[in-house]
Amino acid sequence: MNNWQEKSQSARDYRDASLTKCDPPIGELPDPLPLNSQELPKKYLTEREYELTQNYDAIELLGMLRRRELSSEELTRAFLRRATLAQYATNCLTELMWDDAITRARYLDSLSKPLGPLHGLPISIKQHHGMNGKTNHASYVAWIGTPSVPNPINDILYNSGCVFYCRTNEPQSTMQLECNNNITGLTVNPWNRNLTPGGSSGGEGALVGFGGSVFGMGGDIGGSIRCPASNNGVYGFKPTSRRVPLSGMKCTMLGNETVIPTFGPLTRSRETLNLFMDVILKTEPWRYDPWLFPKQWTPVTFDRPLKIAVQWWDGVVKPHPPMIRALREVSDACRAAGHKVVDWVSLKHAEAWSIVSRLYFPDGGEDTLNLIKESGEPLLPLTKWIIEQPGVKKLSIQELWALCRERDTYRAEYAAHWSATAAQDGQEVDVILCPTTPGAAPPHECSRYWPYTAQWNLLDYPGAVFPVTFVDPVKDKRDEGYVPMNEKDKYNHELYSPEKYVGAPVSLQVIGRRNHDEKVMAALEVIERAMGRDEKFRARL
Amino acid sequence: MNNWQEKSQSARDYRDASLTKCDPPIGELPDPLPLNSQELPKKYLTEREYELTQNYDAIELLGMLRRRELSSEELTRAFLRRATLAQYATNCLTELMWDDAITRARYLDSLSKPLGPLHGLPISIKQHHGMNGKTNHASYVAWIGTPSVPNPINDILYNSGCVFYCRTNEPQSTMQLECNNNITGLTVNPWNRNLTPGGSSGGEGALVGFGGSVFGMGGDIGGSIRCPASNNGVYGFKPTSRRVPLSGMKCTMLGNETVIPTFGPLTRSRETLNLFMDVILKTEPWRYDPWLFPKQWTPVTFDRPLKIAVQWWDGVVKPHPPMIRALREVSDACRAAGHKVVDWVSLKHAEAWSIVSRLYFPDGGEDTLNLIKESGEPLLPLTKWIIEQPGVKKLSIQELWALCRERDTYRAEYAAHWSATAAQDGQEVDVILCPTTPGAAPPHECSRYWPYTAQWNLLDYPGAVFPVTFVDPVKDKRDEGYVPMNEKDKYNHELYSPEKYVGAPVSLQVIGRRNHDEKVMAALEVIERAMGRDEKFRARL
Repeated sequence: MNNWQEKSQSARDYRDASLTKCDPPIGELPDPLPLNSQELPKKYLTEREYELTQNYDAIELLGMLRRRELSSEELTRAFLRRATLAQYATNCLTELMWDDAITRARYLDSLSKPLGPLHGLPISIKQHHGMNGKTNHASYVAWIGTPSVPNPINDILYNSGCVFYCRTNEPQSTMQLECNNNITGLTVNPWNRNLTPGGSSGGEGALVGFGGSVFGMGGDIGGSIRCPASNNGVYGFKPTSRRVPLSGMKCTMLGNETVIPTFGPLTRSRETLNLFMDVILKTEPWRYDPWLFPKQWTPVTFDRPLKIAVQWWDGVVKPHPPMIRALREVSDACRAAGHKVVDWVSLKHAEAWSIVSRLYFPDGGEDTLNLIKESGEPLLPLTKWIIEQPGVKKLSIQELWALCRERDTYRAEYAAHWSATAAQDGQEVDVILCPTTPGAAPPHECSRYWPYTAQWNLLDYPGAVFPVTFVDPVKDKRDEGYVPMNEKDKYNHELYSPEKYVGAPVSLQVIGRRNHDEKVMAALEVIERAMGRDEKFRARL
Repeated sequence: MNNWQEKSQSARDYRDASLTKCDPPIGELPDPLPLNSQELPKKYLTEREYELTQNYDAIELLGMLRRRELSSEELTRAFLRRATLAQYATNCLTELMWDDAITRARYLDSLSKPLGPLHGLPISIKQHHGMNGKTNHASYVAWIGTPSVPNPINDILYNSGCVFYCRTNEPQSTMQLECNNNITGLTVNPWNRNLTPGGSSGGEGALVGFGGSVFGMGGDIGGSIRCPASNNGVYGFKPTSRRVPLSGMKCTMLGNETVIPTFGPLTRSRETLNLFMDVILKTEPWRYDPWLFPKQWTPVTFDRPLKIAVQWWDGVVKPHPPMIRALREVSDACRAAGHKVVDWVSLKHAEAWSIVSRLYFPDGGEDTLNLIKESGEPLLPLTKWIIEQPGVKKLSIQELWALCRERDTYRAEYAAHWSATAAQDGQEVDVILCPTTPGAAPPHECSRYWPYTAQWNLLDYPGAVFPVTFVDPVKDKRDEGYVPMNEKDKYNHELYSPEKYVGAPVSLQVIGRRNHDEKVMAALEVIERAMGRDEKFRARL
């Protein structure tokens, strides 16, 4: 039996061998690497590769592929090369699938008509979602070398004609809003390597944020799609749970139903989020996944101004100045476009965090800690931190029931709270506009406040993340006079300075009521139009 | 502190006092009571009362009320009187709400326009569903005198204009397919007092079967709506879980999510089942119950012949001759009407029972047994029997997860099994036509085989029950040559003789895939039309 370091090295060796396939190789990179990686692609890619990977979203690329203005092989090579560069710059990959991808792309190019709606499009996949015929360690050293299990979403994407070309990093236990583990190590933010790309879909966040992917798959139980989308300035969507299939993900605590995670995409454009939902649901996945409600993706439109509630803070931790500025800019634009903008009252969000953090580990973390102990790999600080949240313990069945009742009572209270927004003017709030995180991407190991995302997992509300702006040293000065309200607020407040956060994207979140996924996406479109964005807008790289 | 007998007597005293309100009183009943109670109403009610309670379903009565051909007070008095008679004949009530009901009916009659779609209609409610302002013991002596909690379905029905006029019996623990407890005692079948009305909504079953209600509310986690509907020859519908609100029901193990119960109606006509779903969902209950999927009741119609699969048996216990005859008669009628009729292959139904029976009591029955011990009331044989099913035990969190995984694997297998029915002819099975129970209503304390209903709770498939025929001593002779396949089959086989089951209704069940509730109801209509029934058909009294 290897010790854990040797086992872990074997996974890195596997990854590094996969990167040597890159043809032509990327070449010598600057040492040290620049703080902001976004200057690298133009230098290290061919002009055509740069154009293909820089200028388009998935929708445009699919159009070009369909019209045969572009072969899947050419496109796939370009993204393979940019993903390789992303790996060198941010350490976001667990594996480059060069040969598989080229073979697949050539096959697709050989067909006389498109295989499906994603014909020829390269798609990146979070490692623990698995991959047919490949191993899946799910960030645990103990699981290195163990096979993937079938993943229906992967299968739908594949059968829709996509090309899988790389797999991306996730943190130990996947219960971190960052991206570090004892196998492939720390992923950094492409905009500022001193900052975290977020997590747990942090490899996807960094890759999409760097332009190494236009369509990546993540999963979210506490913010794991939305936080990395936000930290890297790209789009992300967490559907209501049980709307798209969930199985295939390797993780501990399988069978736990206290909070339900969901898969979802990280993309370069808003419309790609809609595309994802449409492609998945058109295949009627409820025919084999009986957890799902049988409903196609059914876009809605508004024939009236929206009522948008702005969550300036959650009553516990005050977001950093750039987040407040983003909220102000977007809400001003919405108001100017004729929408009603009101303040959101955050109902007992501190209690909500207490409930959801206890719901995450009804076994007190035993299953996760045992798996970490099994290999002897170290318990990383942020894994330890989340498992040691106050009140987390191994529950008896009766204690579990009591906690589920607490959750359900809170959910019902929140539903009533939302419905009550119609009391004054007869118009219910359509969506909440809120921070995704209490600041832009923080320095590594500082993501210790989940409630801006986890709140909506507890409530199982759908949420879409969109890029708004960047930290601006002139506009976003530190509020020196601010008096923190509590320890958490103090920690967050002290994290911030414009210098530390230089280059960081600032993103926001649109939240809707449970199962109103289409409404969230429609509202995001309305909001972005108010911001002056048309359908050509995409996340800046 | 009273001993349990005194406490229990206090609940019977309360019930008996409520019955003395009946005006005029029912008068002297035959002693002993006849085997079949259905001859009583004509003798003990006025001609008008008999007509009103005997000849119509809820839809017709609502039409008469709307057109003011009938006052709610007159109708309510008629049902109060017939319910009182039902109580004397079958012991189905826990309480007659004479004064409340008359006051409410008069109020409704005083309005210049209908309050809602159920304006003036008397509706009966299973006791443990609660009732505003009244106590709720949920069949436990320990809970006698404890208040009801809010019940959204009750509230919707009330706000739609109904009159609550009585509350009905349920068995100890509500986990029996019969209806006996230590408070109000044994409910008997109106068609044959030696037989059980079924359970757990057994009071409703007996009451609706006797004609004392046209619209009663029950709940179902293992057959508790469908079994009593079937045993008493009336209609019943168990929706997919989380389609209508669930809260308000008092029971042990609240917070348990392993198998989700659902409320649903027992009625005299098929269309009343649709009416229930429509009335409830029109109020958008998902606005306060975030568990629900936001979807109105959306009736479907077929523009092609159905493919109906007949479950002749479940591979474990062979249904009695009258059930087989009913399956044959109905499937012949469907075939004659041009529908495709095939055999259903029951996939691992024995394993399914093992899973679902363990899922019912993940605490090994502790919560339920403790509550029974608290008062000192005896543990009844059928309560003991269900808690002592093989494998039932108090689970650790990890064992609970493993059992939930077992459940989910089985559900996925069953979904694939259903989808595979399209393999040969390209047409998937629309619905399964199956027995609700392995025989007509059995003698008391013999309901020891749940899988014909519980199978569909495990899978969370919607199911509608409809009356087909009655046990016929000529057609339904005992199969003397039958060799039982196993102990359960032997027990069931030996239960049957046409003499013992004389008068018993024979009903069947239509089952659809999860969340295809509207399809089940549409298929039932198609099936009944094939049987020669038009919209005027209603359960025979």
